[in-house]
Amino acid sequence: MKLAIDAMSGDLGSPIVVEACQSFAKDHPDVTLRVTGKKEELTELENFNNIEIIDAREVVKMTDSPLGVRRQKESSMVKALMMARKDEVDGVVSCGSTGAYFTGAMLFVKRLEGVERSCLMAVLPTFNGKGTCLLDVGANAENTAEQLRQFAHMGSVYAKEIRGISNPTIRLLNIGAEEHKGNDMHQEAYALLKGDEALNFVGNIEGRDLLEGNCDVIVTDGFSGNIALKSLEGTALGLMKVIKKALLSSTKSKIGALLIKDGLKKELGAFDYKSVGGALMMGFSKAIVKAHGGSDATAFRSAMELAYTMVDHDVVNKMKEGLA
Amino acid sequence: MKLAIDAMSGDLGSPIVVEACQSFAKDHPDVTLRVTGKKEELTELENFNNIEIIDAREVVKMTDSPLGVRRQKESSMVKALMMARKDEVDGVVSCGSTGAYFTGAMLFVKRLEGVERSCLMAVLPTFNGKGTCLLDVGANAENTAEQLRQFAHMGSVYAKEIRGISNPTIRLLNIGAEEHKGNDMHQEAYALLKGDEALNFVGNIEGRDLLEGNCDVIVTDGFSGNIALKSLEGTALGLMKVIKKALLSSTKSKIGALLIKDGLKKELGAFDYKSVGGALMMGFSKAIVKAHGGSDATAFRSAMELAYTMVDHDVVNKMKEGLA
Repeated sequence: MKLAIDAMSGDLGSPIVVEACQSFAKDHPDVTLRVTGKKEELTELENFNNIEIIDAREVVKMTDSPLGVRRQKESSMVKALMMARKDEVDGVVSCGSTGAYFTGAMLFVKRLEGVERSCLMAVLPTFNGKGTCLLDVGANAENTAEQLRQFAHMGSVYAKEIRGISNPTIRLLNIGAEEHKGNDMHQEAYALLKGDEALNFVGNIEGRDLLEGNCDVIVTDGFSGNIALKSLEGTALGLMKVIKKALLSSTKSKIGALLIKDGLKKELGAFDYKSVGGALMMGFSKAIVKAHGGSDATAFRSAMELAYTMVDHDVVNKMKEGLA
Repeated sequence: MKLAIDAMSGDLGSPIVVEACQSFAKDHPDVTLRVTGKKEELTELENFNNIEIIDAREVVKMTDSPLGVRRQKESSMVKALMMARKDEVDGVVSCGSTGAYFTGAMLFVKRLEGVERSCLMAVLPTFNGKGTCLLDVGANAENTAEQLRQFAHMGSVYAKEIRGISNPTIRLLNIGAEEHKGNDMHQEAYALLKGDEALNFVGNIEGRDLLEGNCDVIVTDGFSGNIALKSLEGTALGLMKVIKKALLSSTKSKIGALLIKDGLKKELGAFDYKSVGGALMMGFSKAIVKAHGGSDATAFRSAMELAYTMVDHDVVNKMKEGLA
């Protein structure tokens, strides 16, 4: 197995990627890592037999326009994606800007055969700790019912292969539980999902139940998915900020905060609101994994493991089968 | 001024409405209240000169299908709406099912001249305490750009007349800040809103900023608005539930909870997450006000005051001017 690793595009720069690559390379001697980035920052990786360094002088910045990636051919991100295009690697990992990375994948990596539209998937933490996959969360400004059916297949394969759920339940994001809810597209999507025997479709889900964890995969068009994801993310982060402010507002409340800390950690542990925000690239012919922009070495290493498992379980080809 | 009051359709039945009507009637001797409901439950209102009791034997239940309201002609809700239809009152207040009430208004109350689609508006509490109006939150499964422009006018008049904001800022819910974001409808809506000199349009807003309180009115189609509202409502309520559970999880945390109570109350006071969920009916030729289903007498009285202010400020006709 070969994985391309973009070492440069995250908020914390190359050091965290170097650290993650070192530990990953030791644990997976069978995997070749092709690391793109400024070679003078990657010297610590030189002595590994299973690491190749590909010098890349440009860096795609978080603040760059996503479309700018077209012209950033010398960047670590594009060089990593180009290896996927040329079948030189089985997967790519980057913690760069989601917009640029997705745009780059769209431009340079082949779409999976049979997939009309690639998309972004988020794995939402849920209050019951189970988690749920939501797609599309913003790659497309609109989608057809058939595209939603394809998203359901991709999400279902992911839930099965990566999350170990044997018969993943699927729901359609809608404005009510009944079959006739939503506009024509949603009604058609409902019928397609219900009629597809390979999918365990269990009906609509409303916005208020997104984090209840009562299904494994939620499909929606990219516009609604983006609005839903960002609404819940903004609410969770905003609310936690207010609560933190309250806890620090007086000596009395600071003592109180110490006393509730353990209980809060235990209960909120199941619902890691900070992890909302990352996204997976679905519908490409290679495993394209996005680590959080603010990833530390541990988080980046997890993203590498995810890419490894995706390739190891042949997830991409299994998605293709599901679509046929 | 005359207001129709549906006394029966809330979760807590007629007693809370009777109490609210008594106090309202005393404070507003100039207003005639036409109260619909089972007359034997409204005997305490008999002695008021400015209250008329209209016997209604049926009650629209929270669990009834919204479309059922077509056949519930003898219900307190429909009888109240019919008075609006016949110009016998200037406004209507009910705490019944939002779906049934809106459907009833659609069927029985005239749409405001020039309005293509009536809609539901929610006043969201924001972290900075200012609050913001979001419309449509679910009356329509889809909308045109022109309809969004009309929503902006209605929201703007509401913000000005009822919330006392002199030049309300307006934003379009979208998946990014740039003008070209979203699908054709959103791009057209952006152009219409920007080109309308009567509107103080200040650009797009993303889901994550909905509760930041950095604008007064947010317009969107009914599908996206419903998804946004319910996503943030579900997240806020779910998160508060988890936190409450944590606070009660041990003796230590219970003591901590007592110590943080005041600070928490103060900080969260600005953001009353419980009040998300109610909605106003916009685009009708009368003031149609919906109190929360679970309203107590104080909440119902507030809804009556809102209807009073809407009629007093001639909000409905001012909306008409804005649309011309």
